Amino acid sequence: MELKIKEALEEISRGAEEIIDNERLEILLKNYFEKNENFYVKAGFDPTAPDLHLGHTVLLQKLATFQKYGAIVQFLIGDFTASIGDPTGKSVTRKILSKDDVLKNAQSYKEQVFKILDESKTQVVFNSTWLNDLGAAGIIHLASNLTVARMLERDDFSKRYASNSPIAVSEFTYPLLQGYDSVHLESDVEVGGTDQKFNLLMGRQLQKAYNIKKQQVVLMMPILEGLDGVQKMSKSLGNYIGVTDEANDMFGKVLSISDELMWRYYELLSSKSLKEIGQLKADVEAKIVHPKKAKDMLAVEIVDRFHGSGAGQIAADEFTKIFAKKDIPTDMKEYTLGSGIGILQALVECELVPSTSQARRDIKAGAVKLDQQKVDDDKMILENKEYILQKGKKNFAKVTIK
Amino acid sequence: MELKIKEALEEISRGAEEIIDNERLEILLKNYFEKNENFYVKAGFDPTAPDLHLGHTVLLQKLATFQKYGAIVQFLIGDFTASIGDPTGKSVTRKILSKDDVLKNAQSYKEQVFKILDESKTQVVFNSTWLNDLGAAGIIHLASNLTVARMLERDDFSKRYASNSPIAVSEFTYPLLQGYDSVHLESDVEVGGTDQKFNLLMGRQLQKAYNIKKQQVVLMMPILEGLDGVQKMSKSLGNYIGVTDEANDMFGKVLSISDELMWRYYELLSSKSLKEIGQLKADVEAKIVHPKKAKDMLAVEIVDRFHGSGAGQIAADEFTKIFAKKDIPTDMKEYTLGSGIGILQALVECELVPSTSQARRDIKAGAVKLDQQKVDDDKMILENKEYILQKGKKNFAKVTIK
Repeated sequence: MELKIKEALEEISRGAEEIIDNERLEILLKNYFEKNENFYVKAGFDPTAPDLHLGHTVLLQKLATFQKYGAIVQFLIGDFTASIGDPTGKSVTRKILSKDDVLKNAQSYKEQVFKILDESKTQVVFNSTWLNDLGAAGIIHLASNLTVARMLERDDFSKRYASNSPIAVSEFTYPLLQGYDSVHLESDVEVGGTDQKFNLLMGRQLQKAYNIKKQQVVLMMPILEGLDGVQKMSKSLGNYIGVTDEANDMFGKVLSISDELMWRYYELLSSKSLKEIGQLKADVEAKIVHPKKAKDMLAVEIVDRFHGSGAGQIAADEFTKIFAKKDIPTDMKEYTLGSGIGILQALVECELVPSTSQARRDIKAGAVKLDQQKVDDDKMILENKEYILQKGKKNFAKVTIK
Repeated sequence: MELKIKEALEEISRGAEEIIDNERLEILLKNYFEKNENFYVKAGFDPTAPDLHLGHTVLLQKLATFQKYGAIVQFLIGDFTASIGDPTGKSVTRKILSKDDVLKNAQSYKEQVFKILDESKTQVVFNSTWLNDLGAAGIIHLASNLTVARMLERDDFSKRYASNSPIAVSEFTYPLLQGYDSVHLESDVEVGGTDQKFNLLMGRQLQKAYNIKKQQVVLMMPILEGLDGVQKMSKSLGNYIGVTDEANDMFGKVLSISDELMWRYYELLSSKSLKEIGQLKADVEAKIVHPKKAKDMLAVEIVDRFHGSGAGQIAADEFTKIFAKKDIPTDMKEYTLGSGIGILQALVECELVPSTSQARRDIKAGAVKLDQQKVDDDKMILENKEYILQKGKKNFAKVTIK
């Protein structure tokens, strides 16, 4: 029994940036394993943008893990504030949503998230249900639970206050509303991003103020890096994998990530156990398994998740076929070169030719291709992007200019 | 016509500490005189303490003046926050009031205020009516109209914030609620104490934010000094005249004030016009009217107001009779002497004897009385209070030791 709890704790803690109240978490798991008692894990979602990418699924994967160990997920759609919009009128993104919009978005959420979550262990709830009931007096009562000074300690508020950038009084109510959701739902755990720490802790504080007998465990997940491995995954940065992406696109995008990022994605996105991943990593290090093979497995898993079991292998086969047809290997050496480099130097750096003079001769002979296109100009400067550089029929390099 | 407006403006401005938007005030009066258009003057009252003293009536007198010039008074009972009480639990005075308590207090208010206000030109309104309707979303929307920085500029908030004394977030909503009352009521004018400036201006700001076509004029009245002429009139300081005080008490208390304070009370409490008061003052200065007579007139006016026409004269007669019976004149010279003074020196200072040796002889002869009691001890030290000091049958002085 002890071992089971330990294993569950490890899987739940996996990838988490911080957990507050590990003790209670252990008790919740103990009660599940010993008495089959369920517990409630809350996570809040923005009702405006149901178009998820893998960054969003980090939380969902964590919730799915919780479901394996007795959790009922409280999938909270924060429609109350969306019904208000941004009352200061400053934000163009926080537009007012009608009840219809919210329900439509919720439907779209469900289609996406139940590819990860177990529907039978998920309650989809809308906080407008209870927050509207609070009424004017209830909101004021709620707001009496926090001081202005404490609110101004929140990172973003303190920065804005210090820089004389206006903070509407209404903004002080949002963390309180999120916290009150945990009061109403009597959540045992709340999962959120590290950027949500203040609001997540508010749930604990308000549960205490409103005499909920136990305060929620808070588990914070990191923000997932995008395909570049540096910046956070985001639509606007273009470094994302959307959960509704075509299977082949999805597969190709996963294959394009670096080996290092692959292990990060395994940790945060894979359903494989820590033990399996540990074994795979050891095998790759021992050269029993090629890194490309490990990346293939991750890509297959992710495509399967969003396009159904078997879709991953089909995408993998398709990918191989396309590359085979183009006589391009699916695995090649990768190089990163500085901005402004010329074609001759690039060929040398990528170890396709021994010298620039040889490179010039090869170009003249029509033996050099860039992304399948023959290169004629030996003075060509490479742009800041990813290329496949080829010399002759069999020598390839993947080169990233930045 | 112009003259009438000028006169009305003068009466309305009388005693006011500050008026914001005099221009609009003039327009309101002009519309009344020219087109017989009414306008709305709001004043808010605490639903917890309907036991009024003259300090409270300064506002009421101002409202009564407004009623003479076309105003419908919006007598607002702030029962919404009273229904919440002090949610921080820190204040013992701000207790929660039931609907029944509020109605009972409102009844008691009416009994008191309609001795001053014209009932036919008064609307008694309860802000819970519309503030409850605002709902949770409405409160948040309301709170979006002000920034935290602006709120922290309010005098008491800035002091508390600077001294690390906690301010509950809910407290930020109170000025907003008061301001919203003016939005809902579309008040043309709001009258309040100088200590309410921030909240009164909030009404203007919110009326603008909520697209009320005109913003309310703000008229601030000073805080009335108590009988001592120094500290503000208050129950706890004991320097007050309650509007439910017995007629004789009320009369006596008014007579006890200094001549200087009498003119202040005339300005802030009398229904006499500025012209009449100006004439009276000139007569007193020209010694055509004795100051005691002017004080009598004020006392009669105030007693009449709260005990009905004629009650003032009865109280005046009673007062005279009591003093006559005691062979004490109702008017006597007043002196203020320093603490620790002896009886002999006091007799000299009050010009009742030419020297302390004469004073000693008079005491020996049994000719000196203090508050109607014969003085035997010529070493007696006077306490810090008010005495009537008497030598022989006809020489009196009122002496205050402090």
